[in-house]
Amino acid sequence: MRKSLVLVLLAVAIAAGGDIRSAGLQDPPPNVVIIFTDDQGYGDLGSYGHPTIRTPHLDRMAAEGQRWTSFYVADSVCTPSRAALLTGRLPVRSGMAGDTRRVLFPDSAGGLPASEITIARMLKARGYATTAIGKWHLGHLPQYLPTSHGFDSYYGVPYSNDMDATGTELPAGEPRRRIMNPRIDYWNVPLMRNGDILERPADQTTLTSRYTDEAIAFVKGNAERPFFLYLAHSMPHVPLFRSQEFEGRSARGLYGDVVEELDWHTGRLLDTLRELKLERRTLVVFTSDNGPWAVYDEQGGSAGPLRGAKAGSFEGGMRVPAIFWWPGTIQSAVVTGIGSTLDLLPTIAALAGVDLPPGRNLDGHDLGPVLRGSAPSPRQTMFFYRARALHAVRHGSFKAHFITRPDYGNEPPVEHEPPLLYNLDEDPSEKFNVAGRHPEVVAAIQQIAAEHRKSIEPVPSQLDARIPTGAAR
Amino acid sequence: MRKSLVLVLLAVAIAAGGDIRSAGLQDPPPNVVIIFTDDQGYGDLGSYGHPTIRTPHLDRMAAEGQRWTSFYVADSVCTPSRAALLTGRLPVRSGMAGDTRRVLFPDSAGGLPASEITIARMLKARGYATTAIGKWHLGHLPQYLPTSHGFDSYYGVPYSNDMDATGTELPAGEPRRRIMNPRIDYWNVPLMRNGDILERPADQTTLTSRYTDEAIAFVKGNAERPFFLYLAHSMPHVPLFRSQEFEGRSARGLYGDVVEELDWHTGRLLDTLRELKLERRTLVVFTSDNGPWAVYDEQGGSAGPLRGAKAGSFEGGMRVPAIFWWPGTIQSAVVTGIGSTLDLLPTIAALAGVDLPPGRNLDGHDLGPVLRGSAPSPRQTMFFYRARALHAVRHGSFKAHFITRPDYGNEPPVEHEPPLLYNLDEDPSEKFNVAGRHPEVVAAIQQIAAEHRKSIEPVPSQLDARIPTGAAR
Repeated sequence: MRKSLVLVLLAVAIAAGGDIRSAGLQDPPPNVVIIFTDDQGYGDLGSYGHPTIRTPHLDRMAAEGQRWTSFYVADSVCTPSRAALLTGRLPVRSGMAGDTRRVLFPDSAGGLPASEITIARMLKARGYATTAIGKWHLGHLPQYLPTSHGFDSYYGVPYSNDMDATGTELPAGEPRRRIMNPRIDYWNVPLMRNGDILERPADQTTLTSRYTDEAIAFVKGNAERPFFLYLAHSMPHVPLFRSQEFEGRSARGLYGDVVEELDWHTGRLLDTLRELKLERRTLVVFTSDNGPWAVYDEQGGSAGPLRGAKAGSFEGGMRVPAIFWWPGTIQSAVVTGIGSTLDLLPTIAALAGVDLPPGRNLDGHDLGPVLRGSAPSPRQTMFFYRARALHAVRHGSFKAHFITRPDYGNEPPVEHEPPLLYNLDEDPSEKFNVAGRHPEVVAAIQQIAAEHRKSIEPVPSQLDARIPTGAAR
Repeated sequence: MRKSLVLVLLAVAIAAGGDIRSAGLQDPPPNVVIIFTDDQGYGDLGSYGHPTIRTPHLDRMAAEGQRWTSFYVADSVCTPSRAALLTGRLPVRSGMAGDTRRVLFPDSAGGLPASEITIARMLKARGYATTAIGKWHLGHLPQYLPTSHGFDSYYGVPYSNDMDATGTELPAGEPRRRIMNPRIDYWNVPLMRNGDILERPADQTTLTSRYTDEAIAFVKGNAERPFFLYLAHSMPHVPLFRSQEFEGRSARGLYGDVVEELDWHTGRLLDTLRELKLERRTLVVFTSDNGPWAVYDEQGGSAGPLRGAKAGSFEGGMRVPAIFWWPGTIQSAVVTGIGSTLDLLPTIAALAGVDLPPGRNLDGHDLGPVLRGSAPSPRQTMFFYRARALHAVRHGSFKAHFITRPDYGNEPPVEHEPPLLYNLDEDPSEKFNVAGRHPEVVAAIQQIAAEHRKSIEPVPSQLDARIPTGAAR
């Protein structure tokens, strides 16, 4: 059914090159903006069907550009998902999938290895100005920060906004109570510029607006050269904070206020591109790092019609909203084909006319022809990892779950033989196991999984090592 | 918190009159088209978030007009829902809520009483041409057919397309197997024109296109006078049928093919209005009669993020897609305020400048000011009936469930004291019972329910009487 991964990747590389030629390389190459929200669910935008959250700016962006309905991240939690977006590689290849921990913490000693090549580093070869703004979460020690990974500058919170809680040995239930009734001083998260701490604890009520101010300043300061802006908002990850202007704005409550503020500031950024007449020279991508954190009740988002949530391998954990915008270049459409954050690196490489990072397995496809409306998505397959374990594989319409496990908690994984099989195009809510009806599909996906596993080379985990107690963090 | 229902209705009538004057009555009054699909779920359109069903014509209609996200039918099954739309009255007032049966069947002796005044009859006072096309399901005996209820003509199937199964005493499981693998001759449903049977069994594969052809012919034939078109599609109620052109069209499978065909024919009808230059003189409403029939697995639709499905009083059973379109008059918007099919009669009465049906309790509000963008929805309260039992009440953001019951099956109802309470604006999926946090809201809704119950006068059920065996049907 499918050639080896190496051959497929070779074909992708050739296709990417061919596409660049046929489309005509822009000189200067286009600007690239990636807006990446945190824990925003598939169903948390108006254009993705939320009944009460109002996102007119994102909905307009979707109407003018492409709204993708089967777009995936490569893991269902923050750190590995972000690593995958920036490197175009599955976290299991880069060491960003752990054994005992699923994400980095303030006491973590690891981070994105220097051998990994981010989109930012890749674009430096073409003279791009690059900046990372917002949540990093790929290592907070100096050697792992954005400025060590191809970004000219960094402004943001280096890990999740619920980390670094103040007060030690909080009584049972108290950490959750604090998250549900947040106050800035419950957390000691730093706001950094490059390697320096600007503010601690960060005033989280103004993070969304300040991140956007920084982004707009960066765009204005680099209007004359190609730029890459990676804007990774800390919101709507709990604890939820919004500025005074957005208090009580949304019928959806606090979570809605936060999303509507994100929407409003996204509109500001797009307006800036329009004012500077850069909108026809700039690809803007909006997506989220994983599904909604459902354990926080009304303060978690919604996966819409999808099953499951953050931290799990059902669709709700890994299928996210994804909007592509580039007036004049992108063919306005709703795209139901499969895409992934893993595809951003090869797509951007082709647009910018730069070489793909050499000497490594990449897991992405160039989506450029889809964006221009000249071809269906080249991605046929998506791998659903939970840390280092391959839980499920989607190929075409069908997804086979080899392992399932509650999104949270200590219950052991359940192995399925035969796997559970869902037709996601017909049954996006993963309700009806059709493995018995389609043994040939099960066999084909098992073969794809076996081939894929052969391409995985063991690497040390970056997520499990801790800074020795007493050492400076 | 709220005055008696009589006072409220008086206020509605005054508001309606005032609104007509301020808006200026059109002469001739506007045309009205109601497109009513069957068992289409809240989540089954692209613009309501379905990942793979493509509904470009309905999505365009929504973008040009208003898309309502909290719009309700008055019961979660066909017959009472349809009675409520056409009369503006809760089925419990008109006798269209039963004791042993929830809908009419081919052996039913009852139907919509002659004392009920439909939108069609109401509009005759202003000289409207009126027609009903499609599923009726308010009584198939001559005295109950559309032509006895104010419609000049009727073309369609008089009840559900899964009724009148051929073969008697089918073995267990066989009825379901037939529905899941449908063939036209499994059902003996008639296609009628006025009181005559044109075809039996009706060729269900062409119902959607033939209903639309009839609708277009009616519009063309009445372009010079005000008209009311009630187009009640038989689809996507099981058994699902679509024309040859739509076979395999949708990634969503058979159900998607059927919905995409409905979308396409809706586009044809709107194009006809445009071609005749009637689009600025015609209100078009698109909605569904209840939630998806989930017991039919992939052949049932999706309620999107909502809990529950057809036949139940959770949101998925009674909240439906609703699009209002009238270029030049309707203010383009997404409306999150509450609306209901119960509101169509008073809204249309105000637009047409006709009197409301006299001497009866009505349950609707004039939505005209919302359509024109000059006011929020006047509807604050929605009653969720299951047959004659008041299961739940929504008031503002909150919904209290006094009784819950599985959508199907023989399990007895469960009474809740205190009721379950959900904040639907924050929690549209009805996951988090907040009754303990808001006792004052619970008390207020209980008071509203008590006042409401006083307004209900006992009437005989129309749904339980059967034609004596051996009598001609």
